[in-house]
Amino acid sequence: MQRALSVSRDRFADWYQAVVRDADMAETSPVRGAMVIKPWGWGVWEQIQAELDRRIKATGHENAYFPLFIPVSFIAKEAEHVEGFAKEMAVVTHHRLKNIDGKLVPDPDAKLEEPLVVRPTSETIIGDAFSRWIKSYRDLPLLLNQWANVVRWEMRPRLFLRTTEFLWQEGHTAHASAEEAQEETARMLEVYRAFAEDVLAMPVIAGEKPENERFPGAVNTYSIEAMMQDGKALQAGTSHFLGTHFAEAQNIKFQNDAGGMDFCNTTSWGVSTRLIGGVIMTHGDDDGLRLPPAIAPRQVVVVPMLRDKPEDAEVLAYCENLVKALTHLTAFGQPVRALLDIKKTKSAEKRWNWVRRGAPLIVEVGPRDAQANNVTYMRRDQLRDGDKIKSVVKPRVDFVEGVVQLLTEIQAGLYADAKARLDNNIKRDIAGFAELAAHFGEDEDSFKGWVRVAWSRPSGTALEGIGQKLKALKLTIRNAPADQPAEFAACIFTGKPGVEEIRIGRAY
Amino acid sequence: MQRALSVSRDRFADWYQAVVRDADMAETSPVRGAMVIKPWGWGVWEQIQAELDRRIKATGHENAYFPLFIPVSFIAKEAEHVEGFAKEMAVVTHHRLKNIDGKLVPDPDAKLEEPLVVRPTSETIIGDAFSRWIKSYRDLPLLLNQWANVVRWEMRPRLFLRTTEFLWQEGHTAHASAEEAQEETARMLEVYRAFAEDVLAMPVIAGEKPENERFPGAVNTYSIEAMMQDGKALQAGTSHFLGTHFAEAQNIKFQNDAGGMDFCNTTSWGVSTRLIGGVIMTHGDDDGLRLPPAIAPRQVVVVPMLRDKPEDAEVLAYCENLVKALTHLTAFGQPVRALLDIKKTKSAEKRWNWVRRGAPLIVEVGPRDAQANNVTYMRRDQLRDGDKIKSVVKPRVDFVEGVVQLLTEIQAGLYADAKARLDNNIKRDIAGFAELAAHFGEDEDSFKGWVRVAWSRPSGTALEGIGQKLKALKLTIRNAPADQPAEFAACIFTGKPGVEEIRIGRAY
Repeated sequence: MQRALSVSRDRFADWYQAVVRDADMAETSPVRGAMVIKPWGWGVWEQIQAELDRRIKATGHENAYFPLFIPVSFIAKEAEHVEGFAKEMAVVTHHRLKNIDGKLVPDPDAKLEEPLVVRPTSETIIGDAFSRWIKSYRDLPLLLNQWANVVRWEMRPRLFLRTTEFLWQEGHTAHASAEEAQEETARMLEVYRAFAEDVLAMPVIAGEKPENERFPGAVNTYSIEAMMQDGKALQAGTSHFLGTHFAEAQNIKFQNDAGGMDFCNTTSWGVSTRLIGGVIMTHGDDDGLRLPPAIAPRQVVVVPMLRDKPEDAEVLAYCENLVKALTHLTAFGQPVRALLDIKKTKSAEKRWNWVRRGAPLIVEVGPRDAQANNVTYMRRDQLRDGDKIKSVVKPRVDFVEGVVQLLTEIQAGLYADAKARLDNNIKRDIAGFAELAAHFGEDEDSFKGWVRVAWSRPSGTALEGIGQKLKALKLTIRNAPADQPAEFAACIFTGKPGVEEIRIGRAY
Repeated sequence: MQRALSVSRDRFADWYQAVVRDADMAETSPVRGAMVIKPWGWGVWEQIQAELDRRIKATGHENAYFPLFIPVSFIAKEAEHVEGFAKEMAVVTHHRLKNIDGKLVPDPDAKLEEPLVVRPTSETIIGDAFSRWIKSYRDLPLLLNQWANVVRWEMRPRLFLRTTEFLWQEGHTAHASAEEAQEETARMLEVYRAFAEDVLAMPVIAGEKPENERFPGAVNTYSIEAMMQDGKALQAGTSHFLGTHFAEAQNIKFQNDAGGMDFCNTTSWGVSTRLIGGVIMTHGDDDGLRLPPAIAPRQVVVVPMLRDKPEDAEVLAYCENLVKALTHLTAFGQPVRALLDIKKTKSAEKRWNWVRRGAPLIVEVGPRDAQANNVTYMRRDQLRDGDKIKSVVKPRVDFVEGVVQLLTEIQAGLYADAKARLDNNIKRDIAGFAELAAHFGEDEDSFKGWVRVAWSRPSGTALEGIGQKLKALKLTIRNAPADQPAEFAACIFTGKPGVEEIRIGRAY
């Protein structure tokens, strides 16, 4: 069968690269590890930003903006934070270039007294502002968020999944008590879960990360984990309860209502352009990307079948009219996003471009459609009937009347497929570590899904040892879901009584 | 008279700092030259972004995102560009920190082979993508924009006006002919003019910059110039026709419809967070900021007069209802942005906070208002009647019915005031350079406005010399408006026949 992509999902890593490229999502840049996000990929990010921003504001947060550069001395303040981030940061050492012997080089006379790092995350620079802004319990809770670019040097970059520069939102909040900060941590994890499932149609498991996978400086870290089509996990968002660690390191104090001075409890939480990689690996097929309508930059694309003939004018007018009618409708709380594709390329090429890009509905209008007041359309989620492309002819009025329902169905269908994959591929009844090793085997590329096992929640060096054993199998503990059974099997690592169930799998 | 600010506009520079601080717009950060944009300041930027983004998309542009880091070799490609920017760039030289003798320093083993600069502007990195993306005339015009942070090292930073890191949009386009690129340059200048006047209520003069003020590498640079309340000019946006300079330096070529290969003509254009400084200096008064309703994060703020008494509940319910009713209205094409201020601070403090922040309408509701179905409100643009605060009591139903009209009036009034200031303070009939010098005098701080004079459009070293003479008076040529008279006086610099009228003034 002829497919719109040259690579199928059998070769998942190659397929991923092909989709990113052929769906016009992004490309590598001349700067190692950095990416160029192309208009269609950026359009997806704009939809993600708009909807997530509404949800972040609806939970009482305001946006602000903090500096890109952080003095090295700030990073040094929180000990674990240094350990976690010092290894992967871009360091600015000069503020001028100079032409020396015909070559542009950092000007030796413009060396900074203190080097600056490009923010890998902003706890320290935002904490500094918090320490100035917070005086009394009346100033709490302080609930801020920023949309920003961050940089973590990557040796093995992959577009969207792991890039030196990426875009994200990072929430930072300060509270009068540990309880309130813990509630906030849980609230934002739930915002992420709902957003991933309802908007990205990407089912996730929300839960707590093990101690050895915590954010550097956090008391607890929580994540949402999604299962990709190759069975691997993608950590798609994290929410951290920081306790008073950062507050103590940065002197974030408030006068409580009894007049005494207390340290604040703080949180941070973020999702990034990595989500786009998750959407691709959750919904893509062998013809390219399939975008959930809620985040598709264009939900309906209308391709006029033009032939450089006089009837072209009629076809174009008909299409313009159709797009206008669609734009007046509302889907997922926003005006329907419809596009009339009038580029200079051939209509067959246009069709395949939109298939690869994953536009949810592709409408083709020829002279006969225009004359009969019909539209011919393809659903991207049900593109084929066997080998053949499945297209439907409908009276225009019926199509317009039903289009919001269609988009809703496509969104629900994509979610249902991904949800079935997640639910059906978490293996239970793994009796011990040997069985775990046997289940996952050596071949990292075959589909294994995740396993669900009980453990005794070891910590410290015991946990480090387990982490090493798992690492040898290229496995990691993903998280421990909030929803736990009433009874537990024995710990597969220690043989002691289990106290919690965790998910283990291979991951991005 | 007691004012809400401690400094009046007589001391304009101090006043500006006071407004930025007391209106909660921004503050300096521990990193020299960088700023923290606080939620109210960021809210203004969000409004600017949203409306300008609509206008940029409505003129056919798509958004994309390009890397923060640019290899030094890219910057070196366009000769004038190097000269213009090499002096003020942040340079990344290492990708890791290391703890050496108890101190975090750039790791000597992690030195980059080629240093990277943090983008001061993106012509070179976007040009690199254009050279890969553009193959044929069918790919043209290519019309892109990005919203991004950029860094230009500043020795004398001022919040919003001149900061090391700032936020902006930068449009970059490629065209098949010089004419099309010139049309694009003019189109975007007009988008900026209309945006500044219609949305920011900030009247501007749009025109061409003189040769010595061009963007490094441009054939022509155009600007919009606004007059601040101290009579100085603020360059508020620029649009550049780059000809084939960057295309030749970066090999941006296309196959024309005759089969031959041509260089593209490119443009670039941008506005930044500097606009916020312009809004402050255009509309602020001695009580703080006055925001044009079209960009106010909150257009109507409702302050409940609570007294920790049982009737508080009724007042709150009444206010919630009022805010809900307002939110359902539409002003300037968007839902009305109303806020119920339920912070724990006292209502008098709230009033003055919102006065300083410049919320267009401040509504105060006490128990008597709630019982009588009234509202008491202040217009921020007409705050005082002599020394006294002017507040109006109105039936709630009338207020809600008239609020959109009120907001429209406030927007128009702010524009009219600023327009009168601009129109009345451009002096004509300056006969020669001596008269120009006498008009502006030594005192940089007294209000002088601009002058409008004819010149013979000298270029090269002649123009450099004039630039030096003007610089000694702290003056610059702002621009030459598109609208020119039919006849010209003699050039005030050369005495030769005038060919163009220009605006000269002091500037930010």
